[in-house]
Amino acid sequence: MAGPLVVIGGNAAGMTAAAEARRGAPDLEIVVLERGGHVSYGTCGIPYLISGEVASEGDLVHHDPESLRRERDIEVRTATEVVAIDPEARAVTTADGRRQHYGALVIATGARPVHPDIPGIDLPGVTSIRHLPSARAPRRILSEAPEPAVVLIGSGPIGVEMAEAALALGARVTIAESRSYAVPALGEEAAARVAQALGEAGVDVRAGARVEGIAQAGGALEVSIDGDRVPAHLVVLGTGVAPEAGLARDAGCATGAAGAITVDRRGRTTVEGIWAAGDCAVAHHRVLDRPVWRPLATTATVQGRIVGRDVTGRPGRFPGILGSWVSRFGDVAFGATGIDGAAAAAEGFAPRELTREGADRSAYIPGARDVRVTLIWDEDTGRLLGGEIAGSGEVSTRLHTIATAISAGMTVGELAACDFGYAPPLSPLRDPVELAAAAAVGDAA
Amino acid sequence: MAGPLVVIGGNAAGMTAAAEARRGAPDLEIVVLERGGHVSYGTCGIPYLISGEVASEGDLVHHDPESLRRERDIEVRTATEVVAIDPEARAVTTADGRRQHYGALVIATGARPVHPDIPGIDLPGVTSIRHLPSARAPRRILSEAPEPAVVLIGSGPIGVEMAEAALALGARVTIAESRSYAVPALGEEAAARVAQALGEAGVDVRAGARVEGIAQAGGALEVSIDGDRVPAHLVVLGTGVAPEAGLARDAGCATGAAGAITVDRRGRTTVEGIWAAGDCAVAHHRVLDRPVWRPLATTATVQGRIVGRDVTGRPGRFPGILGSWVSRFGDVAFGATGIDGAAAAAEGFAPRELTREGADRSAYIPGARDVRVTLIWDEDTGRLLGGEIAGSGEVSTRLHTIATAISAGMTVGELAACDFGYAPPLSPLRDPVELAAAAAVGDAA
Repeated sequence: MAGPLVVIGGNAAGMTAAAEARRGAPDLEIVVLERGGHVSYGTCGIPYLISGEVASEGDLVHHDPESLRRERDIEVRTATEVVAIDPEARAVTTADGRRQHYGALVIATGARPVHPDIPGIDLPGVTSIRHLPSARAPRRILSEAPEPAVVLIGSGPIGVEMAEAALALGARVTIAESRSYAVPALGEEAAARVAQALGEAGVDVRAGARVEGIAQAGGALEVSIDGDRVPAHLVVLGTGVAPEAGLARDAGCATGAAGAITVDRRGRTTVEGIWAAGDCAVAHHRVLDRPVWRPLATTATVQGRIVGRDVTGRPGRFPGILGSWVSRFGDVAFGATGIDGAAAAAEGFAPRELTREGADRSAYIPGARDVRVTLIWDEDTGRLLGGEIAGSGEVSTRLHTIATAISAGMTVGELAACDFGYAPPLSPLRDPVELAAAAAVGDAA
Repeated sequence: MAGPLVVIGGNAAGMTAAAEARRGAPDLEIVVLERGGHVSYGTCGIPYLISGEVASEGDLVHHDPESLRRERDIEVRTATEVVAIDPEARAVTTADGRRQHYGALVIATGARPVHPDIPGIDLPGVTSIRHLPSARAPRRILSEAPEPAVVLIGSGPIGVEMAEAALALGARVTIAESRSYAVPALGEEAAARVAQALGEAGVDVRAGARVEGIAQAGGALEVSIDGDRVPAHLVVLGTGVAPEAGLARDAGCATGAAGAITVDRRGRTTVEGIWAAGDCAVAHHRVLDRPVWRPLATTATVQGRIVGRDVTGRPGRFPGILGSWVSRFGDVAFGATGIDGAAAAAEGFAPRELTREGADRSAYIPGARDVRVTLIWDEDTGRLLGGEIAGSGEVSTRLHTIATAISAGMTVGELAACDFGYAPPLSPLRDPVELAAAAAVGDAA
């Protein structure tokens, strides 16, 4: 290409694209422009940085600009915000008024937290989890208050992970969830397992809650929830994120689901010379067979790799996502893959759904942990569409199994017949995933 | 059918067949004839009974004859050995000379340990793990000796599980393995991880060893291994098993792989009115697409279910096995699914094999455990043929994922693209299974 590869945004998608482009083009000039102060860090580790399970910010940083320059010949400019893209001139303008020419441009601007429109949302002590420095205030506030209290607005995975972190720092924790039950990213049965763990840990979970406002009270805050005034030193907003697609839109790039940047399966936007990847872009969904917006680090890195190849003349094809995610509260892990019953019904499937709970080992081995499995499948074809798991037993790798079965287009009956290994202390004769799949075909006796 | 259902053998396959037949035929007379003193127990739990992790024999027993009679109307006769089958008269003869007529006969006689032909093999203190009472002598000997010493001949899963049990009882443990490396049920790289754990636990592993004989010495035994005389209070033979197919063969049933009883995918033998299931019978292998002999509890229960249905007029089709198994030594679990490189080559595939080791969480989360993954695939088609895992991280459910991919006929590239969930403390951004699959297609950077 004529001119350098310029990447806007230096985290999962952007840095993966830059690194992959370097592998394909040893001599290409590569410039990464990052608005923040860090690149290439583990955003998903921030709750564990706040809790202290991860000791320092530096532990979350995979690469710094200096090592990227030295080891990979990638030029990284932090604190450099791109304010405009000129696709015809193939140049970007940064906040300091300088222009940077590009041969190829990768937009990897990520997503931003959405703040609800309630009074007091901008008060100090009200925060959301976004980038590395956003861990500092929560950790400081929780460490300094003698009896810290936290209100979490929203009970998505980040809200629940923040609840764990706050408890680890000795805080009293209240969760205000506007939906009718906590952890609404899961169906009710899987979510109930997480709610049970939250309750056992002493978290005050308020579902169907309306947050009326946040006010200062003494040296701290007070959150009005359904008329109650809940004291808090820290309020964390887990009220969702939105794609950072403004720059791309202004440059003429089409946007799609949730306003995210439209890309094809090679990662190309609708504007010549511009690619996009990660939380700012749509991604093809395997079950829905169309682009959706699911901001996840796994999707971002796969898209980054595809784009890094495409810009260096090695076109690939994004394989598609299942939106698989997993999270943890204390001893209980939970997550989902594929689509849920409501999405399946909206898509024209004839969804069936079933939940089974099993132990993670033979009944006679002490120390069993529970695994609650929900499967969603299409009644007409038997095709597996989605799965959810929650429990104190191993969750994430069981979700891998369900994701594999969905990817393969398996029916629930085929999943039930996969022949899993068995050893009394490791895996029961019939794994909870197998049992749920067998129950789906009336074969779990 | 005219006459009762008679089942020979009351463990995994036999009792599952009986229970499933009961579900399909509420009024059928069902008689189970068991040579031993117990039915329906967890054979695979015996090492944990010896170690004391399982407190008592009774804990391993799922059902006793009385409860089976009361709750399921199944008549169980223990200590009742069948010595002959008369297929024309549809009757069996038991050791006490009595005849039992059958309308349908299920042979579920299991497998027996193979004892090597070495001097001293029949001495007291030399034993193998077979049925529930076989736990008693090892546990007594190891508990009574002040400084117990054990020699294990063979390092298959049972040998390794017995090593763990013996260590738990404070024994000094020597393993004599005739093959060139320990745990030869795995390829060398996975096996090396188990050998490392055995070594760290102080087990004296002798590979490529020849056991010349066993002799009495003082109040204990002495095992000659490559000219060394190794003292032992207990010698456990883990030198393989063979199908108990004699009765069936004498009745005219054809036998196949390893001398096991030939059955079709409905579980029927070649003799009218006789079915077989479990360790005494062959089972269809999905990758090899032909019957093999793989004595495993998982296979036995699935075959038992298929047979229990078939004899009550609900024919099914055995889905086929992958020979998946998993085992444990201390903190390290290990296992395999599908076929290994040698089997793949013998089968006419163009096998490729690759091993990758990864952590079970993000690098910045403390306490990472290791997962070593070996994948075997066909170079010409990319089709996944087999997998092995060993490590201190979660093994069994990762093998489920590989088994699912093999069952689905996936290529390694398709496995790499399955979209697994990620959370820093639970599952790394790229799971070791995904990384190994990606490396197989040159995509693991």
